[in-house]
Amino acid sequence: MKQVRLGIIGAGRIGNVHSQSVANDPAAVAVAITDINRDSAEQLASMHGISRVADTSRELLDSPDIDAVLICSSTNTHADLIVQAAQAGKHIFCEKPIDYDLARIDRSLDAVERARVKLQLGFNRRFDSNFARVKKAIETGEIGRPRLLHIISRDPGPPPISYVKSSGGMFFDMTIHDFDMARFLMGEEVEEIYTAAGVMVDPAIGNVGDVDTAMITLRFASGAIGIIDNCREAAYGYDQRVEVLGSKGSIHTGNRYPNQAIVSTGASVRRDLPLNFFMDRYAESFALEMRSFIRAIREDTPTLVTGIDGRIPVAMGIAALRSHQEGKPVKLSTISSTTATRS
Amino acid sequence: MKQVRLGIIGAGRIGNVHSQSVANDPAAVAVAITDINRDSAEQLASMHGISRVADTSRELLDSPDIDAVLICSSTNTHADLIVQAAQAGKHIFCEKPIDYDLARIDRSLDAVERARVKLQLGFNRRFDSNFARVKKAIETGEIGRPRLLHIISRDPGPPPISYVKSSGGMFFDMTIHDFDMARFLMGEEVEEIYTAAGVMVDPAIGNVGDVDTAMITLRFASGAIGIIDNCREAAYGYDQRVEVLGSKGSIHTGNRYPNQAIVSTGASVRRDLPLNFFMDRYAESFALEMRSFIRAIREDTPTLVTGIDGRIPVAMGIAALRSHQEGKPVKLSTISSTTATRS
Amino acid sequence: MKQVRLGIIGAGRIGNVHSQSVANDPAAVAVAITDINRDSAEQLASMHGISRVADTSRELLDSPDIDAVLICSSTNTHADLIVQAAQAGKHIFCEKPIDYDLARIDRSLDAVERARVKLQLGFNRRFDSNFARVKKAIETGEIGRPRLLHIISRDPGPPPISYVKSSGGMFFDMTIHDFDMARFLMGEEVEEIYTAAGVMVDPAIGNVGDVDTAMITLRFASGAIGIIDNCREAAYGYDQRVEVLGSKGSIHTGNRYPNQAIVSTGASVRRDLPLNFFMDRYAESFALEMRSFIRAIREDTPTLVTGIDGRIPVAMGIAALRSHQEGKPVKLSTISSTTATRS
Amino acid sequence: MKQVRLGIIGAGRIGNVHSQSVANDPAAVAVAITDINRDSAEQLASMHGISRVADTSRELLDSPDIDAVLICSSTNTHADLIVQAAQAGKHIFCEKPIDYDLARIDRSLDAVERARVKLQLGFNRRFDSNFARVKKAIETGEIGRPRLLHIISRDPGPPPISYVKSSGGMFFDMTIHDFDMARFLMGEEVEEIYTAAGVMVDPAIGNVGDVDTAMITLRFASGAIGIIDNCREAAYGYDQRVEVLGSKGSIHTGNRYPNQAIVSTGASVRRDLPLNFFMDRYAESFALEMRSFIRAIREDTPTLVTGIDGRIPVAMGIAALRSHQEGKPVKLSTISSTTATRS
Repeated sequence: MKQVRLGIIGAGRIGNVHSQSVANDPAAVAVAITDINRDSAEQLASMHGISRVADTSRELLDSPDIDAVLICSSTNTHADLIVQAAQAGKHIFCEKPIDYDLARIDRSLDAVERARVKLQLGFNRRFDSNFARVKKAIETGEIGRPRLLHIISRDPGPPPISYVKSSGGMFFDMTIHDFDMARFLMGEEVEEIYTAAGVMVDPAIGNVGDVDTAMITLRFASGAIGIIDNCREAAYGYDQRVEVLGSKGSIHTGNRYPNQAIVSTGASVRRDLPLNFFMDRYAESFALEMRSFIRAIREDTPTLVTGIDGRIPVAMGIAALRSHQEGKPVKLSTISSTTATRS
Repeated sequence: MKQVRLGIIGAGRIGNVHSQSVANDPAAVAVAITDINRDSAEQLASMHGISRVADTSRELLDSPDIDAVLICSSTNTHADLIVQAAQAGKHIFCEKPIDYDLARIDRSLDAVERARVKLQLGFNRRFDSNFARVKKAIETGEIGRPRLLHIISRDPGPPPISYVKSSGGMFFDMTIHDFDMARFLMGEEVEEIYTAAGVMVDPAIGNVGDVDTAMITLRFASGAIGIIDNCREAAYGYDQRVEVLGSKGSIHTGNRYPNQAIVSTGASVRRDLPLNFFMDRYAESFALEMRSFIRAIREDTPTLVTGIDGRIPVAMGIAALRSHQEGKPVKLSTISSTTATRS
Repeated sequence: MKQVRLGIIGAGRIGNVHSQSVANDPAAVAVAITDINRDSAEQLASMHGISRVADTSRELLDSPDIDAVLICSSTNTHADLIVQAAQAGKHIFCEKPIDYDLARIDRSLDAVERARVKLQLGFNRRFDSNFARVKKAIETGEIGRPRLLHIISRDPGPPPISYVKSSGGMFFDMTIHDFDMARFLMGEEVEEIYTAAGVMVDPAIGNVGDVDTAMITLRFASGAIGIIDNCREAAYGYDQRVEVLGSKGSIHTGNRYPNQAIVSTGASVRRDLPLNFFMDRYAESFALEMRSFIRAIREDTPTLVTGIDGRIPVAMGIAALRSHQEGKPVKLSTISSTTATRS
Repeated sequence: MKQVRLGIIGAGRIGNVHSQSVANDPAAVAVAITDINRDSAEQLASMHGISRVADTSRELLDSPDIDAVLICSSTNTHADLIVQAAQAGKHIFCEKPIDYDLARIDRSLDAVERARVKLQLGFNRRFDSNFARVKKAIETGEIGRPRLLHIISRDPGPPPISYVKSSGGMFFDMTIHDFDMARFLMGEEVEEIYTAAGVMVDPAIGNVGDVDTAMITLRFASGAIGIIDNCREAAYGYDQRVEVLGSKGSIHTGNRYPNQAIVSTGASVRRDLPLNFFMDRYAESFALEMRSFIRAIREDTPTLVTGIDGRIPVAMGIAALRSHQEGKPVKLSTISSTTATRS
């Protein structure tokens, strides 16, 4: 196949990241971009040499010279755009989450299936060399059969309250990455979730019905047990680590740092703080996920993060929230309600 | 005060450790030792220069030249020996646990209180320089108000099944140290416990009604949340680590290694395995706890690990077991039954 | 200033690296490329969207639409090309070394000075975040006045013998980077060099008159002392570290690794090997040095690696070689011979 | 053999350390101690249960119930005491150095050889688990044939000037340990030494003719090359590390720390300073060297640090000093002068 021709929907921060990745990959070319704010679209077009700025996503989806679209717009538009793109016969890369409503997610996935187009979800952390290394240790049997999993996932500081109100809350905007990571690493599904959570960072977060700190227990189908450690604020910055104990050994990952320098003075032996947030920490994984999507199209192979991978973490978020509300473990099999509701 | 005169009850492995510590502390002298196996007692007496071997613990408790006793005999004798020692007016160092029956523990503590003698429990890990450093970081405010606690506590391999049968099970012979550590580090009590556990190491352990792997969630009175990660087997050896996230930062500890050498070859960058079991790993803390007990007697100050510190971890074990059995969180305040019972 | 228009001379591996950097920097554009192998030039032109392939460097230097050239051709062409580019009024980025003959270097630098164009030498390691952090620690006084410097610089394996024959030898093709690093970090000049070196990796290297392993002592003007540890082969890969002891503390840097994962099994606690060679290890610094050169042109500021920075390391190489040949320390001030000669 | 009966000559700090080691080793007993300050001797006797305080070393050497002596008195007494002890038929453990005069050393070693008694020198660092691990990596071929050696050996702060005046200077009181380490690790002799040294810590040290900072190059018989990095002052404390590059890999050791805790705050990721001086850092190795001496006597095997191991480091110190004075490399084979003389 020749170069994959891409259309980009959404010219915000993540649209910029993906445009840059496409510009650096000789296997693809971005032929058009659109955004509800035309200025943003024009700026990215100029920066990354994208020749056309479309007025609407509709116009872009109707363009016959586009093979695939990158959905980088706001979350509430994802489900509909997936349906429209699928109906237009375009392959789809969509930022997570698809939606917070399982019924809407299911409609999107149905459309994708009927259209037989490819769909890849933006769980970029799967492409991080640390987590990929853990996955490999599990898959190759290097550490034997997994028994216990730790996912440490802490942000440098809480987002604005306005974001917390609209995002669906911590379990949906933050833990969702960790739910995906848990499934990805272990290669199996979670059956039951127990959430211990609270408001420890900022009472304002509690006032809008959310939590900011949690320890979430996951029971996997095999009997293995995991925990996710989440906090909206870590004074020392972005903290993203994983540890797995298996029958033959363990693997754990550390953070990434701007340098490998150690300074020793009369006060302490110290190093600089870790890379502070996801744009720096996961720069490599953003590039790799886009390359992976482009390759899946060119080589007509399955994408590495599928539609169902976009659905299950949302169901896990619903279960985690319900466990928190009810104070007891919740089985994933009972998640029939289709929307997360915060008290 | 002149040298503290000690009598040692029990000449097994832990009796040997404490005898050695006493021999190296100029502030105390071991004047007598006893054991149900007289040969063992005579051997230790010879190794550590203890002048007298008593026939029975009774004879030892009746000796007017003894200020304090070290109870290093089997667990089922602890509660009665504490009562007898207290009635004989001796200060008491007792290996953990006091008992698995809360009513028996309470009778022991009553006797100690009435006799106004000192009692110190053998939670030696409190004296480990790593955990003491974490405690200091919390107490001095170095990491701010604690939010999340991790205790990783894995053994190199499972004990014999016979031991599992008689020990009360993993929550009582292994986790009990971690329950104590959780209270010690956080400086507050646990209010609710949720246990996710299973048999992943050896089915034979499950056959006698015990588990070998667990992730235990602790909710503290302040709202802070902790987890204890336990496994009866870690292929790489003894694994004892702690991590606390606070409002101003975090602290975590690593394992101790026989050396600080790193070997780099064409295969990997590697180091030798950590110190393999508690006798090596906690050698320092065993010495420090005994010194602390001797100092408490000489200076007439409270012991650093009291009777109630011996009681609460047992109640926590009962709660953890019940949570495991019932599959839901258990409040500590509901622990009225006085004995742990395994199904 | 608008975009800097660049011409690239040499389409080999390093020409490719710099073409990519230019393509990612919106402040510059590569307008032409040339190579003695036209196919190579055309391939890079196609990959990086360079519109024109020039037949000769002369044609490129005569192009009025070119502001600056990147000299990425073989070392023996550097000195002449610098002279020609300067006379053509082009700013110059030149890969190291300029030449092995001090007289030829001086003629190049004279031409640059007369033409008042900018010259930057390709000592990319100065832009590595580790070494930049060490430089900062020294400049800001974080570790006080420097006393002792270690530069560890080991390659994964020796180059082909043909390369060793033509490169000028280890002191000129490998240590030259470390000589630059020594001056860069310490911010002062070396006055005397003592070389202890030998052939330990491959006798064939000795047969062509070179060494493959060395410990080179540097005495700085301030009295500080440094050593450079060089070996053509390290079984575990590319090893690039620095350590400085100062009056208030020390700083040392570690290698860079493909991931931050630690695997613990019954055999060892290990991690994967470091990034294996300079294209991976110094990827970031290659991009930053090019951005720095482009910025110097746009903002009309001095380049961060000047012509004299290209001359002195060659003089140091001559001194190091002479010290090795004579078995005694050599003062830099005595380097009047203009060419390195190997016995 | 039954318990080895030891006499201790010298009740200072190091006499105390060895007395403690003997007290903890059931294979030996200290039966007498002497010191020119009788109070010191009586104090140690009381602390460690040594039954007899001798008036003079003569009295002690004449005691028929003593198998071996530990010479812990001041350096200027070592050579004569070795001769006297050998003539009295006692095995000898002697603190380093034997003397600074090669002729006097030779007379001592002659006496030992004629008397066929055992002599062990107090190079305790050989028994440190880190350096022993490096030795093992070399001996077993784990890292192949050694090529380059680094010994980093820095003190927390300079000794009093009075000590510097009488000690023979840095090469004799500090580097002597590193000279021994170099020979011990590499298992071969140094043939040539080049010293680059200066006064960077305190001008008063220079005023009495000594240096306080040095980088010393060692050429081994095999062609391998080493450096010793010495400084009288490291702001962050006692720094004792080793690194060896071999044909199959490398090994390096780190410092020892009071704990393995890492604190992360908004300022840095840090740990506490390393163990601050040799009494803490090498506590283990002091105990092991004494156990090794006692075992050599009981089992009638050679000591692990012999008389010649005491002589050669002094010759190396003389060569290092001469290299410093003359500004050029010095061959060990030319060290015929028997005394170190500082200008």
